[in-house]
Amino acid sequence: MMLNLSTLQTEQRNQNTLSIDTLSTLEMVHLINQEDTQVLNAISECAPSIATAIDAIYPCIENKGRLVYMGAGTSGRLGVLDASEWFPTYGVGEESVIGMIAGGDVALRVPIEGAEDDRDQAVKDMQSIHFNQNDVLLAIASSGRTPYCIGALEYAKSLGAKTVSLACVSKSEIGQIADIAIEAITGPEVVTGSTRMKAGSAQKMILNIISTSCMIKYGKVYGNLMVDVKPTNVKLIQRAKNIIQEATGCTQKRASDLLTQSHDNVKVAIVMELMNADYEHACQMLSDNEGRITHVVSR
Amino acid sequence: MMLNLSTLQTEQRNQNTLSIDTLSTLEMVHLINQEDTQVLNAISECAPSIATAIDAIYPCIENKGRLVYMGAGTSGRLGVLDASEWFPTYGVGEESVIGMIAGGDVALRVPIEGAEDDRDQAVKDMQSIHFNQNDVLLAIASSGRTPYCIGALEYAKSLGAKTVSLACVSKSEIGQIADIAIEAITGPEVVTGSTRMKAGSAQKMILNIISTSCMIKYGKVYGNLMVDVKPTNVKLIQRAKNIIQEATGCTQKRASDLLTQSHDNVKVAIVMELMNADYEHACQMLSDNEGRITHVVSR
Repeated sequence: MMLNLSTLQTEQRNQNTLSIDTLSTLEMVHLINQEDTQVLNAISECAPSIATAIDAIYPCIENKGRLVYMGAGTSGRLGVLDASEWFPTYGVGEESVIGMIAGGDVALRVPIEGAEDDRDQAVKDMQSIHFNQNDVLLAIASSGRTPYCIGALEYAKSLGAKTVSLACVSKSEIGQIADIAIEAITGPEVVTGSTRMKAGSAQKMILNIISTSCMIKYGKVYGNLMVDVKPTNVKLIQRAKNIIQEATGCTQKRASDLLTQSHDNVKVAIVMELMNADYEHACQMLSDNEGRITHVVSR
Repeated sequence: MMLNLSTLQTEQRNQNTLSIDTLSTLEMVHLINQEDTQVLNAISECAPSIATAIDAIYPCIENKGRLVYMGAGTSGRLGVLDASEWFPTYGVGEESVIGMIAGGDVALRVPIEGAEDDRDQAVKDMQSIHFNQNDVLLAIASSGRTPYCIGALEYAKSLGAKTVSLACVSKSEIGQIADIAIEAITGPEVVTGSTRMKAGSAQKMILNIISTSCMIKYGKVYGNLMVDVKPTNVKLIQRAKNIIQEATGCTQKRASDLLTQSHDNVKVAIVMELMNADYEHACQMLSDNEGRITHVVSR
């Protein structure tokens, strides 16, 4: 197989770090941090394509489709990471978002030899979750050329599903297949080819932007409060009470009572207080307004 | 249990995002990106403590100790993520770095109810890997108060092991226990309390800085080339050849031959070419110089 990596921006030598191995530790830290600032610029420059992707993804989720992240190595792990955060933050789980990594979950810890080069496995992985035309695929690859992602994109397109690519090079191979191509040009890495660094950080931040924005548009955020948090541990129970207080201006004691009365449903608790409603009525009002507190309140 | 989250910087309401739910998608993307720039400043401000941590960690690794990342939720996942990248990038595996997450590997995908609140489990998890005084613990918690991390730090200290904490608040509880406290003050999140965002990005970048710098100091980087990459897939084989070429100035064909002759050991391949040595001699020279190409070459 012919593979020319030397033309990829992510694989080129960084002229600012040619002698990083001779620096003091503190100089090293500052130099890497300095290089990381390019991540922010790269994201800003591709903001329009990120916004286009969000506007394609959240309607799919509203229509009971799923966002499926797929990638190999660090890219795959970042997809799984982002997907894992939807439930505790927004109460949205596998029915709406799934992260898949080449080589399966073992690859979350250990590199699986050759997994990223296996196009056919991508199709098998998608079939295992019954990927269909109502879902959206978001394929992630720093180099933009991972065969696992190319296989996934081609299969998704063959089904008529929406496709988004996320790469850290321009004119990426995956971007040429996907409906929407996000290309965050983070440039040569501090250690040559170590795309877990700037490219990985850009991917993490972009996935955070996509998931957060989709959840805001989906009504999971009221003002800047996460009103569908699931109180599964001490910190999250306390956070749930704080959110009820912040959203309604009630006392901490009242927030605690509301959380109990709403059966740990923060959104319902807020509507109960703001609309002076009992549990059933609050649930009904939310249900009549696609779960948006803003709509309930503005009626 | 009393728990006052409202004093934590990470849990406060961000005055810049109070109406984020009313913005256009593109405005949302730019606002989140704008907030993310604070991540870089926060890291820059705590650079001295990061450097101190690196200078404490890499000698432990040289002395056959291990760096053990521990955390709950996103913090735990980011530790596992960083640890998983050491082997493909630098050829260094579980003998030198381990990531542990509260609730075990299932928690890499799914939140485990109450796991972060379990101090005793932290001790059990550390005993399961025979954590000892030669190892270093790096406990990660955005809020700086995760009981799982506090339990881990107290146990590590009781054994006389070095301890580092990584939090995103000032005067963190874990920072008051650890020998070295890293506190990256990323401020209120875009969505209130959503520490997977700025705090998580800061943690990812800081772990990348720590692991990369440790590996540079450990001789795994020559100039800015990762000379201990393990060629486990098509991309990494090509990268290995490119590194040999870059380090020695040889042709692509010669780099390919050297990779074969060195039994896929990039460092040995480079020394063979630079010192005009055969395989055995190159191995010996590296072994005599603690694996540092720089030392071999400068003799």
